[in-house]
Parts: sequence; structure tokens; C-alpha cells
Amino acid sequence: MSTVRRNAEAGAAGMVAGLPPTLEWVGAADGVVRLIDQTKLPERLETRDCATAEAIWEAIRTLRVRGAPAIGVAGAYGLCLGTRAARDASRAAFLSRVREVGRYLSECRPTAVNLGWAIQRVTQVAEQSAQERTSDIWAAMLSEAHALAREDAEVCWRIGENGAHLVSAGAGVLTHCNAGALATVAHGTALSILYAAWRRGRRFQVYADETRPLLQGARLTAWELQAAGLDVSVVCDGAAASLMQAGRIQLVVVGADRIAANGDVANKIGTYGAAVAARHHGIPFYVAAPLSTFDLSLASGKDIPIEQRPEDEVRVVGGRVVVPAGVRCLNPAFDVTPASLVTAIVTEQGLAQPVTEENIRRFFQLPG
Amino acid sequence: MSTVRRNAEAGAAGMVAGLPPTLEWVGAADGVVRLIDQTKLPERLETRDCATAEAIWEAIRTLRVRGAPAIGVAGAYGLCLGTRAARDASRAAFLSRVREVGRYLSECRPTAVNLGWAIQRVTQVAEQSAQERTSDIWAAMLSEAHALAREDAEVCWRIGENGAHLVSAGAGVLTHCNAGALATVAHGTALSILYAAWRRGRRFQVYADETRPLLQGARLTAWELQAAGLDVSVVCDGAAASLMQAGRIQLVVVGADRIAANGDVANKIGTYGAAVAARHHGIPFYVAAPLSTFDLSLASGKDIPIEQRPEDEVRVVGGRVVVPAGVRCLNPAFDVTPASLVTAIVTEQGLAQPVTEENIRRFFQLPG
Repeated sequence: MSTVRRNAEAGAAGMVAGLPPTLEWVGAADGVVRLIDQTKLPERLETRDCATAEAIWEAIRTLRVRGAPAIGVAGAYGLCLGTRAARDASRAAFLSRVREVGRYLSECRPTAVNLGWAIQRVTQVAEQSAQERTSDIWAAMLSEAHALAREDAEVCWRIGENGAHLVSAGAGVLTHCNAGALATVAHGTALSILYAAWRRGRRFQVYADETRPLLQGARLTAWELQAAGLDVSVVCDGAAASLMQAGRIQLVVVGADRIAANGDVANKIGTYGAAVAARHHGIPFYVAAPLSTFDLSLASGKDIPIEQRPEDEVRVVGGRVVVPAGVRCLNPAFDVTPASLVTAIVTEQGLAQPVTEENIRRFFQLPG
Repeated sequence: MSTVRRNAEAGAAGMVAGLPPTLEWVGAADGVVRLIDQTKLPERLETRDCATAEAIWEAIRTLRVRGAPAIGVAGAYGLCLGTRAARDASRAAFLSRVREVGRYLSECRPTAVNLGWAIQRVTQVAEQSAQERTSDIWAAMLSEAHALAREDAEVCWRIGENGAHLVSAGAGVLTHCNAGALATVAHGTALSILYAAWRRGRRFQVYADETRPLLQGARLTAWELQAAGLDVSVVCDGAAASLMQAGRIQLVVVGADRIAANGDVANKIGTYGAAVAARHHGIPFYVAAPLSTFDLSLASGKDIPIEQRPEDEVRVVGGRVVVPAGVRCLNPAFDVTPASLVTAIVTEQGLAQPVTEENIRRFFQLPG
């Protein structure tokens, strides 16, 4: 029995079998966040225990934990860690500390909206709490963070279920970066669709863009798809268009770090080029994301802040300096794919197809 | 005075100042081929002396010397090296050796047509020679190889002159892989156009795709443009489309490894994706190549053999294994850009624009 099959029987609350937890709270109120240090994959599967907000900040900033949903949950737990020592303070002092730590963590990475969203949810629990004792407020915050983690796994499971029909047996599927179990608490977003199709017995070939500069496709997507028993090949980002030309790709599916109200999608640098190539070849291009990735406060992708990361991520590859000293390297971490190039957005509530503001707002039951 | 400016005064026979010879024959009849070991750039500028056909074969195969024009010249010299010991043999035995070594070297890399073309030219000199003594035939072959090297530098110079008008002051120019001085005896093909525009006093920004898997853009294009005094930035291949979206690219210019009769262009993997993105953004896409890169025996790009290179070029980056063991890596070295996506092909005889079989055959004065 395949690992994915076993998981199907475990139900929505389960994990993809073969895959360890991306991050989890270990222990009771005095616990820590244990996360897979993704910078060490695929060589070593190492976990790291974070006991402070600073440790969470560092883990998010250096991409030990990454992926919009996962950093949302990490941020929520980080807020609990960073306010734990203030549990004996006055309510006002405690709430002041909650806001301070929340700001600190929210600004760690600017593009993914889930981080700010999750921190906001936990902050609201604190602010709206009717509890007298700050230690009880803190306990409610930790409960909310646990709820966020559970919801993330369930939401990702539902994304997979909602998108499974998009992947036919025999298809070639291109994905970019890692929008998998490692980018979430479990299942993933884009890869959840592939896991769901696979456990329905369909067999297909996944092509993972290696995803320069940090090679999340080569290191992480290949690792988790292989661990889960799927069939995956790695290609350089520049080779994807020629695979399409050769008829080897029937659909593209990626995740998202933030989606504007009009459906423009910020995702890992290189996503836009893949979307342009897909359009050129008439290949459907799907984005998979939970509703928490939508930012309806932004009219379009033009308003999404794009994180510029250090030049050395481009300059130094596997320890080797590959760009001459003195030559600039540009390193935008994300790009924006306009809604017009996206065939559908797959969410836990179903598909937005075509990708229009109206179809997106319907998920939120908000007037347009 | 800029280095390129000084070179302009040196005239067509000169080199781009600041750049050492890519490869040259050093010595007389007992000489060797001295070539820059491009696998060592940008860390170290090291040359390597090749005294046998086997050493040339190894240097071409492992990309110590690369670029269609440069490997053509290397192959021509390699044929001289590989037949030198047979100079005392009978004419028949010598010619048999010429053909044997020629085949051996021609099959070293399959996509670039210049290799077979150059070896063929030197072989014909031998076969058509009226000389009695095989040592004289061999001397004529070496002369022909020297002529090929001189012609390559001159042809590349003329490509630059013919294409210089395409680059306006203030432009952003995207290039892929290395089609520069390092890919030829001197000047380059795509980069010759940039050198020619720069020595006319125009100032512009070059964006070099790093060009995975072997990073020739990051390592070689950045190195030679910087050495020649041009303004260059390196970007990951996946970032190029978003630069176009942001309006930072006004033209794309690349080289070619083989061009079919209809104008379809085989070039480094990733070229096709850049061409698709350029078309999507309405940005002109130019290919620069000497006539020796055309293969009129092939009706279209479908007939061009595409070299598949070792998986480890993708799997291992700077000494680090970045793909899990057991996961396949696809590593096609080239892709084919259809003529319909190419705005013009810039040759030593001028531009083929639009890119049609008729406009190409005109260069060869052959009936269509």
C-alpha cells in the first residue's frame, strides 16, 4: 500500500505518511516549537527546537521554516513564546508585549500575508479575552495557535480534495518551489492536489523546477514527493518551457504567498515566467492557496511588497562563489503573476474559476 | 579610456582589451593549444595546454572550452594535434588518420554545428591537397586552422558592427549563457553587439541570466563584461520574465549552437523560455551567430540533435548535492527556439529579418 493511500485512511487530520511534521508544539505550556530545519534538506533531516520569539524570527528569516502557511503557524506560536515570560504582568503590560512581539514577528518577511494574518488572529484572542488573569489569556492564545495549526492541516487537505480532479492519469505536472507539506503543517497546497490525485490511484509524472536561488524545488519538493512515494524529476528552471514545447506538461500547479483582491498572485520568483510559458502553450496554470493567503485589502498585485533577499543567495552556490566580485546580483524573492494568466485558484472552499474579484469575494461572502 | 574603446582603435583583428585569448596555438609546428580553462572561472584565470586530440576532446567535453565558434576552432586545432604524429606516414594512411581523428572529435558534442563544420574544412584541405609529402599536407591543415581562428575573430567583430544599432543608450539588455569573447576566438557573438554599442559611447545595463545548470552567465558573461568595463548584473533564470514585466528589458540577445534552414535556433537550455517571455512582453529577441552556425541541411529545429548531459550537473551545485538520491534530474543542454519568436538573426553579412528561409539562404547565395 502506498504511503499516500495509508494517509487517506487516516483521514483529514492525518499527515502525508512518510513525512514528519513540518513544525509542531512539543510539550505543554512550557513547550517549544520543534521544526524541521529545511536548510539542511535533502542531506539531513534535522529538527530544531525554538523556545523564544527570537529563535522563531531567525528560523523564518533564514528559511529554516518557510512557505506562507507554515510561517503563519510558526509566527502564531512565536507570539506565544515571546509573551510567555509576561504571563505574570498586568493585562495592559501583557497586551503591550503581545503587540510588540507581534510587530517584531510580522516584519520578519514582508511578502507572505499569512504571517501577519496568523499573528493577528492570536493577538485578537488576547485583546478580546474576557479572562482576568494574563496567564489565562496566554493559555487562550496558545489554544488559538494550536487551532491554527490544526486548521492549516485540514484546510490543506481540503485544497487537495478540491483540486484532485485537475490531475489526470498519465499527466505531466510542473510545479515550482515547494508548496508542499513542508510549506504547511501538513499536506501542502499545490502538492496536496497531487497527493489527493495519487491516493485516488492516478499515476502521473511530476516535474519540479529546481527553483533558484535557494533550490526549494530540488531540495524540498523532490524530497517530500519521493518520501511520499510519488514519481518526481527535477529540472532547471530554464528547462520548463522546453518541456512544455515537447508536450510533456499538461498542467502547472503552484502555491502562493499573497493573492490580491483581483486574483494577482505573488509567489516564488520564477512563477511568473512559468505562467507566461504555460499561456504560450495553452497549458492550464493553477494556483493552490488557503483563504488566509488572500489579502483583499490590496486591489492588485502591484501593491504587494516584494522581498529583496541578500545578493549572496545568488552569488554563492553550495559554498562556491559563482559571480565575480563587484558584479551585482538581483535577488527578488517573489514575482507577481497577473490573474489573467491563472486558470483557477484552488482553495479549501473550492475553485475560483475564472479568476475574478467577484469569484474571489464569494469565498469571503463579502459584497464586491 | 575604456578598454573597449582602446580595442576599437586596434581594429577588427584585435581582441576586446582586458580579455586574454580564449584559445590560441602557441609555438610552431610542435606547438600546443593553450586555452582558458573556463571551468575555473570566475575564481581563477587558468590556462591549459593541450598537445593531443584527446586533450582537446576532454577540454571540449568537460566545457573547459565551450561556445559553438570556439569549439569549432578548438576542433580544427585538435585535428592537427591528432594527426601530427602521422606526418611521416603514407598519404593514404595519413588521410585515414585525418578522417578517424575528425570523426572522434566531431562526436564529442552533438549540438553545435561549428565543430563538425570546422573539422570538415580542415579535412577538405587535407583531402584536396596537391602536396606530395604528408608533412606538407599537415602544414596546410595547420594553416587552415589558423585561418579559421583569424576568421572567427573577424566574423565576430563584424557581427558586433552589424548589430550595434540594436542597442540604444539607456537600454536594459538581457542575455543568456555566454555568447561572448569566451565562446569564440575574440569578441563573441551576442556580446560582440554589446561591445560594439559600448565603444560607440552608448551606456546601457546588461542583465546576465545565470544560466543553470553550469552558470555560464554568472561565471563567464559577468566575468568578461566586467573585465571589459561594461555594466552587468546577474539574475537567476527565473527572474528574467519579471524584469521584462517591470519594463527593465528592452531587448534580448543570445548566441546559437545551430540554426536550421528555416531559422529555428538551438541554443543553451533556457533560451526558449526567454524567447517566449520576450514575445509575451513585445520585446525584440535577437540571435547573433556566424554563418558557420547555420546548418542548411536541416529543414527545421526538430532535426537538431539535443545533447543530454550528465544528471550530476543539475544534482551537484558547487560541491553540494541538492537533489535527493534516487530522484531523476533531466539535463538537456539545449533547447530550440522557433524562428517565429526570433526578431532577427545578426550575422557577419548583416541581419536576417524577418527570420525566413529565404532571408537566410540569401547569405549563402543558394536558391531556396
